[in-house]
Order: sequence, then C-alpha cells, then structure tokens
Amino acid sequence: MASQYTIGMDFGTNSVRALVVRLPDGEEIASYVQDYRYGNHGVIEEAGSPNLARQHPQDYVDGAEMAIRGALEAARGDAGFAPERVIGLGVDTTGSTPMPVDEEGTPLAFKSELERHPAAPAWLWKDHTSVAEAEEITSYARTVHPEYLAKCGGVYSSEWYWSKLLHCARTAPEVFAASHTWLEIADWIPAQLCGIDRPEEIKRSICAAGHKAMYNPQWGGYPEAGFLEALHPELGRIRRTLPDTCYSVQEPVGALSAAWAERSGLPRGIPVAVGAFDAHLGGVGAGIRPGVLVKNIGTSTCDVMVQPFGRPLEDIPGLCGIVPESILPGAHGLEAGQSAVGDIFNWFVSHLQPGGPEVGTHQTLSRQAAEVPAGAGGLLALDWHNGNRTILVDQRLTGMIVGLTLHSRPEEIYRALIESTAFGARTILERFEEYGVNVDEIVSCGGIPKKNPLFMQIYADVLKRPLKISRSDQTAALGSAIAGAVVAGSAAGGYDTFDDAVARMTGTLEQVYEPNPDDAAIYDELYALYRQAHDAFGGVRGDVDFSQLMKELIRIRDERR
Amino acid sequence: MASQYTIGMDFGTNSVRALVVRLPDGEEIASYVQDYRYGNHGVIEEAGSPNLARQHPQDYVDGAEMAIRGALEAARGDAGFAPERVIGLGVDTTGSTPMPVDEEGTPLAFKSELERHPAAPAWLWKDHTSVAEAEEITSYARTVHPEYLAKCGGVYSSEWYWSKLLHCARTAPEVFAASHTWLEIADWIPAQLCGIDRPEEIKRSICAAGHKAMYNPQWGGYPEAGFLEALHPELGRIRRTLPDTCYSVQEPVGALSAAWAERSGLPRGIPVAVGAFDAHLGGVGAGIRPGVLVKNIGTSTCDVMVQPFGRPLEDIPGLCGIVPESILPGAHGLEAGQSAVGDIFNWFVSHLQPGGPEVGTHQTLSRQAAEVPAGAGGLLALDWHNGNRTILVDQRLTGMIVGLTLHSRPEEIYRALIESTAFGARTILERFEEYGVNVDEIVSCGGIPKKNPLFMQIYADVLKRPLKISRSDQTAALGSAIAGAVVAGSAAGGYDTFDDAVARMTGTLEQVYEPNPDDAAIYDELYALYRQAHDAFGGVRGDVDFSQLMKELIRIRDERR
Repeated sequence: MASQYTIGMDFGTNSVRALVVRLPDGEEIASYVQDYRYGNHGVIEEAGSPNLARQHPQDYVDGAEMAIRGALEAARGDAGFAPERVIGLGVDTTGSTPMPVDEEGTPLAFKSELERHPAAPAWLWKDHTSVAEAEEITSYARTVHPEYLAKCGGVYSSEWYWSKLLHCARTAPEVFAASHTWLEIADWIPAQLCGIDRPEEIKRSICAAGHKAMYNPQWGGYPEAGFLEALHPELGRIRRTLPDTCYSVQEPVGALSAAWAERSGLPRGIPVAVGAFDAHLGGVGAGIRPGVLVKNIGTSTCDVMVQPFGRPLEDIPGLCGIVPESILPGAHGLEAGQSAVGDIFNWFVSHLQPGGPEVGTHQTLSRQAAEVPAGAGGLLALDWHNGNRTILVDQRLTGMIVGLTLHSRPEEIYRALIESTAFGARTILERFEEYGVNVDEIVSCGGIPKKNPLFMQIYADVLKRPLKISRSDQTAALGSAIAGAVVAGSAAGGYDTFDDAVARMTGTLEQVYEPNPDDAAIYDELYALYRQAHDAFGGVRGDVDFSQLMKELIRIRDERR
Repeated sequence: MASQYTIGMDFGTNSVRALVVRLPDGEEIASYVQDYRYGNHGVIEEAGSPNLARQHPQDYVDGAEMAIRGALEAARGDAGFAPERVIGLGVDTTGSTPMPVDEEGTPLAFKSELERHPAAPAWLWKDHTSVAEAEEITSYARTVHPEYLAKCGGVYSSEWYWSKLLHCARTAPEVFAASHTWLEIADWIPAQLCGIDRPEEIKRSICAAGHKAMYNPQWGGYPEAGFLEALHPELGRIRRTLPDTCYSVQEPVGALSAAWAERSGLPRGIPVAVGAFDAHLGGVGAGIRPGVLVKNIGTSTCDVMVQPFGRPLEDIPGLCGIVPESILPGAHGLEAGQSAVGDIFNWFVSHLQPGGPEVGTHQTLSRQAAEVPAGAGGLLALDWHNGNRTILVDQRLTGMIVGLTLHSRPEEIYRALIESTAFGARTILERFEEYGVNVDEIVSCGGIPKKNPLFMQIYADVLKRPLKISRSDQTAALGSAIAGAVVAGSAAGGYDTFDDAVARMTGTLEQVYEPNPDDAAIYDELYALYRQAHDAFGGVRGDVDFSQLMKELIRIRDERR
C-alpha cells in the first residue's frame, strides 16, 4: 500500500521551511527553504533604532507558496510520493510576532495608506522597542493581578504581545487606530491557508496566547478588559476583539482553500492545524512526552516539558511559561530557556579571537579544551553574557569569570564557558524538579548536539543524566508535520492522538552521552560554587560568603592536575 | 674643579648592574650590566621542582668585578671622570635571598663537599619551596608572638628568611648542619667587597633583617631563641649567631679591600655602604622623603614610603613591612605591593593573544583602549591573577572579570585589567592614609610609567592624584650610589645626610599626569564596586550584597556611551 504524507511548515526569522514527512514512520523525505525577501534577510530594520525588528506579511505568503512548491518538487524523488498523498499540514512560527489587521483581517502592511509605515508590519519576536512598556505592565500587574505574571516567570517581557501593542498605541497611534485587532502570525498564517480572513473566525493559538498574551482559562482567558484599559484605553478596545477560547495544535483551523491548493500544489481541503511556536512544536518533533525534557540548543536554548493535566503543578518561579495545551493536548506546556549558549562561545571565538582567527576556532578550542580535565582549569564562569532568562528572568545581568591566573589558557576559558552554560542548564532542570516536574529523560536537538561532543559530555556530566540526541534535525517542522498528521486523523492515514504520532514519528540517535561519575562529582562541587555566584549576583540571596570560593577553585584545580 | 663620583650596584635576579653617578648632581654617566652565568640566566632550577630557585655566589663575585670594570670603562667617555675620583659605593640586592656559610664565612656552595648540593647556594627571593614552613611559622607566631607578624602584614611568607631556613633544616639537614649561619646576600656582598669574611664581623642590613627575618628593636632584634627552637632546634642554634643590632644604609660596612681595588679598578679604601633591598634603595633613587609614595611599577609593583621617627605610626594591617630605617635613617620604612601588574597585561597579550599575536599587541590594545571612555566598557576586574600581596596578603586569590556581554571587546577587557590594577593601587594608598601615613606626592618608576600613557592617566584618575615619573630609569642602582655618596660624606665630596643627597641627586620628569575630574568621578563609582568584590572575595566582609553590581555596571556603561 502506498504511503501517506504530511507537511510541516516552520516560519523562522529569516526564512520559511516546508518539510515533507512520510507516514506512518516519520521519515523526512524532502525539505525546501525559502529565504524572505523584505528587509535584511526578512528583518525590517530602522537606522538608529537597534531594537526595532519588523517583518512583512508578504514574505509569509510568498514564502509559504515557494517553500511548499519546492518541497513537493524535491519529494518527487521518493518512490511512493505524489502531492495528492499529502493528508494534512501544520504550521509553526516565531513569536510573539503580533501583526495589526483591519476588520476584514487584512494586514495593515497590505494597505496602501500604511504600507510604508514602520509600525504596520508584523512585530518580530526580537523587536525590543517596548522595554519601557514591559516594565510598566510588569509593575502594574504585580499590584493588581500578580497571577498574570505567575505563569510567565514573574516578569512580562518586551518581546511579548501586550508590550508591543502598548508601545504601538503610544508611539504610532495612527497605526493603532487603524488596527481592528492584532493577530500572532501563528494565528494568521494557518487561517490564510484555509482562506479564513475575518479575525472573529480565526482559531487563535493557545500556545501564542498563553505564553505571550497572559491568556489562561484559570482567569477566563485573556486579561480582563479593565486591566488593559488602565494601561491604555485602546488596549481595552483590542481586548473586545479577542475570543474567549484559544486552541491547541490538535484542532484544525480549517481546510486548505482552493486558492491555496492552486498556489501550492497541495490537495484542496486537507486539514490545517492550529499554529504554535517553533520551540513548542520543536518539542513535539523531538519526541516530547511526560518526563522528557527537550533541550533545543543553539545560539540560545529553549527547554520544554509537558505535565499532564491531573498531575499537581504549582506556579514555578522564574519559568518563562506555563500554559495549558501549549505543546500537547491534555497537558500543560512548560517553557524555560537560556538567553545565550552558543552565542557565548561565538563571542569568545569571534570577538576575542584567542591566538587569532585561524587559531582560536571552535574546532581547535574544543579539541584543546577536551584535554583539560574537569576542574583542572581552576575557572568558574557565569553564563549571563546576554542576561538570564530562566530562572532569574533578568536581562540586566552579565557574564563573569573567576579563577584567572597568569597561566590561564584560552582553552581553559572556553571550557569554563561551556561548563557555565551547563550549570545554567542544571539550574533549570533542578527548578523543574523542585516543583514536581520530574525529568526522566533528556533529548537534545538544535545546532550544537550533533556537532560538539565535548559540549555534550560536559552537559551529561554536569546534569548527571544521559543525554540523547533527536534523530530529526528539523524538529520544529517535524512537529508541525505531526500536527498535520493528527488533524488528518487515522482514517486518512494519520494519527488520532499526539501520543501515537510522537511515539511513531520521532526518535533519538543510538549515540547517548553518559555521565562520567568522576567528572560528575567534580561538577557537583563546582556547581555549588556556581550557585553561590548565581544566587548572589542574581539577587536571590544577600548572605553569600565568597571568602572561600577562589580557594575552593584552587583546591579542586590542584587535585585534578 | 673636577667632579667626584659614586658607584651604585644593583644585584638583580638575572644580572648585576654597576652605575657610575656624578656628584653633586646625580647625573648618571655610565652603566654596565653583567649577566649571571650559572643556571638559567642566573637562576639554578631543578626539574620537577617548579618552586625551587637558587643562585650561585660565584655569580655575585664575578658579576661585581665585570660590572664595575665595564662601568668604569664606559665612564671614560665623561670628560672629568677618572676611577680614582670614585668616593664611595653602595649595594642593593634581591631578597630575601639567604645563603648558608661556614664559620669562616665561606659560602657552602664554594666548599667541594657541597658544591653540587642544591641546598648549598643562595636561596633566591622567588624560591617558593617553603610554603608549608611559612604557614607553620605564621600559625605558631599567631599564637605566641603576634607582634612578629604585625610588622609584616600578618602573614609570614614562603619567600622569607626563616621559612627558607626551616625548609632547609627539614629537607637538607646535612647542609643545614654544615652551616654556621645564614647571611642575606645584601649582607654578604658588601662585606666581601671590604674583605670581611667572618660572619660575626659583618654588619647585617636592617632592611633585610627587618622585612624578612622578624628583626625589630621593639622586641630586641631578631625573634627570641625559644620561639625559633620550638620551630626547630637548629633554628635556635642559628639565632645565637645573629647580632643584636642591624644597620641602615647610612653605615659603612667597611672600606674597599686591596684585593677588590685590584679586581675592580676602584680606589682602595673607599667606603662601602651597608646593603639593602632593591625596592628600598629604589625608593631612595626615586626621591623618597616623608609624604612621597614611590611606586615601582613593572611586572609587579612595589610601593614604598617613609614615616619619620616621632610621627605616630600604628601597625598597618596587610602591609608587607614596617621596619625602622629600612629605607632612610631616622624613619620607618614601609613597603607594600601588588603581586602582578604588568604581568596581567602580559598574560592577556601572550596567553589570550586576542586577534592573534600580530594584532593583540600592547601597543594596539592600548591605543584602542584609550578610545573607550572610562566606565563605557561595562567591565570590572579583580587584579589577583598572581594573588594579592597588599592589603590581603593572600596568594590563594585569583583574577576575576564581571560585566561581560556578547559585545565585550578585547580592548575593553584590556582597559578593565589596567583599571583593576589601579583600583588595587588605590586600596594600598588608602590603607597608608587610613593609618596616618599621608601621601602628598606620588613618584612612579620602573618599566611601565615612561612607556604607557594610558596606564598613567588611568592611575591618575583612579588615585585622584597627580602622577610624577622618576627621572632615573635605574632607581635602585641610583639609590645605591646615593648610599655610597653618604657613607663617603661631604668632606670627600659626597653628602652627610640622605636628605641632602636625595634632594640634590634625584628628580622627576616635567611631564605630570593630572587627574581628569570627570573620569575620576566615574572611577569613584567603579572603585566602590571593586571594593565590594575585593572585600567579599578577599574575605574581609561576608555581608556584601551583589544583587546590584551588574546593574550598576550597566547603568554606568550606558551613561558613558
């Protein structure tokens, strides 16, 4: 019998990927990446405003068409493949990336009177123009609705929905006045594919709403209108355009429209799943289930877990997000992350260039650092070169290194930087477990795990757990494809539940990094010192005695040499 | 009328210098450096014992002859010069560099039965084989004679006289048994030049004895025999060979012997001053007087001051040494220092090599760092890459840097390292003044001041004082020459007092680095943060709140950019 197929679409910062996946086994048979064309690799910037990052919706539309067509073309190499055998489609996007639309659902950036206005396009996740508004929202919520903050780590971010809307209302009121509502692109893109324009008819993503827009069924969905009106009257107006209910990725937004069937070459009428963010569907593509921590490790990290409804779950201080069904139906999705990981090593290599650009490469430094026994460098670092997302939720923290001597070598520093990110990862893991979300298994994915064995071994030793690696290199797109298979259902050749789909369509490599007990014991000692520095400089504790820290590092160093 | 001349001899780690100085104005007319020939550039090392550093006395004898002959030869270029116009000679050496001798005063290294024994030569100042013994002496003195420690910063060092003797008694008892007494080379060399061999006839240097061997007239000179016997019976025996009185550099040890007149070409019978350490006679050559802080700034620093007898002077916690007449007669000599200064910048350039060896030079980094406004790098460092000598007296401290971001640049780090050493210097200056030793003027000398304007300006801004530079590049040898002129006396064409000699024979450059008030204000803020870290990691205070330190660095950075 010929196979069926599902398509996952991953709308990133600079490009969109379409991935064709075979059913039932999840084999990735073809993929195509379409770069965005507007702005600087898809990011619309403004001279003199380093925090501004916008994105034009035309890139989503054009990109979707080109990526699907490209992937279908590439899939023709697979013996059983034919476009009509695709049974469903899922979508993940960056976020929070909200976009103003009019009553008809037309993006304001498509309207001639606003097409050149910098506030009219989508406000990309990494747009940080709304720092002041984020602080205002945090501060006000702390007073009147602390529960709104409890689900997002205690601090509302400048990257998120309401901060961006408030900043627009204040700084571009003409755009704000022209907006009927604001949609996350995770809402807008799937609806577009189904020909659904009117905002009221669009099923909004609980992943986007819950993690970024203070949506939670516990308090009746989005924040109450009075709260928003107190921040700005216009926000109250927007609140009235928002639905009472948002949806998880197991729901279809609709069926692929005739127009999009024509544009893309896909069969008309196949179900399109509700959208979600890349990190969350990436967890799905990496095989998430209760007890599995999925770590997406690249320039920064995103750590996701699920806790099934029914198991106890408190608010977890410092966690970026706790949202029902943001990852899998029937479970809370939990999101944590580190603001910089690979970026820290890249900083060392590209900014400090130890030994020069030809000498101080990642490859050379990793090889040399692998020769330094754990603890023998005598160094300890804090991994806050880009602030701390979890568990401190504080951008105004910075990196530190201690233990330097006149003999400290670049590879020792490089190793200490890797270790510092591993200690940061352990802080997150421990925070999960302190609040009853137990980690039975760790699956890593992203850019680093397959490339850097030293990194992986250090993580296994610091976390004291085996570290697996996701089989898929495209976990977000695969997660979206899985959502497409689930909304299609088993009758069509897909799956009826995410549990089944994840179990059959994802997997890990045979290679597993196992902790080395000797190094793990050393790292226990170093981690205790890391936590001293973490808690003191992070403002958790004011009573840390640092008088022995340098001496302890020397003692460990001398024992290990 | 033809001029008179004086000769200063500076016995360093790798070589000996002879400097011919014209009287009365202190003009340096000729100099000659003779490298040592034994071991590795004069340092006898032992494979597998990185802490061992010994020196053969033959190098002192041969080096003295060659250096004086070379300097006299070079001085012939000066119109009025003739060797018979030299009226006196002074000597400075490294220290504590004690050497075992027999009853006749013959160094054990000259005796055939011990000439190959590694414990028989002089134990060079930087020999660190006696760490355990230093801790034992510190700990025992703390219990029974805390006053012994109060004059040397509270901790007895592995570099010092009794540590070395105790280590020898324990590890090379055959050498120790053969020793009648141990002389500092600052004692032995001047005596040799005068043909004085028998240890009982040698005037020992109060500078060496006071700073390194717990000698102080306040408790009757050297430590009491019972204290030393409790450490080791053999130390009690050595104690009985030590004189009741030691002497300052205003005393002649004797007159140049006929044999040495023959060897060196100098006039027979000219007075030779009691020896002292290079740092202390360096202070004299830089123009020390009450109120003047002389900073000798090179790979490390040595800071010296004098406090005249009669002015109140408490024990100053953390100061390396407070010794009557160790620098000038009639005054206490005070010594402080930083374990690494230039060495820290050298580490950054030679070990990290930012941008590669051709790019990350001192010259380039200094030029780029000069473009970074004070505070704008957002970084703060602790200058403890080689421990902290003053005021913490703790070798087991290490360097630290905080405030790192993904944008931190090598020149910002380089600047932060310079600033950290300036903050260390301010800690020393403040410690002097907290205890009533006021600093009216700062004169710098050594390798860095004439070479690095950025360094000097940062120091002026951090210390909030004008910074002068010694005219002489050879302050130690010049100080020795001044001692030679004083022991010769005014009747011979020299001087009767150090006050007169220093006033006439030393000076500073016209160029003075003046503090910039704006930068000084920024550095006041950064210094407060430095002291937080200094006091917490240095074990002075356990109650420091670090929660705002990174945020303060960011605030200052953002204000200065």
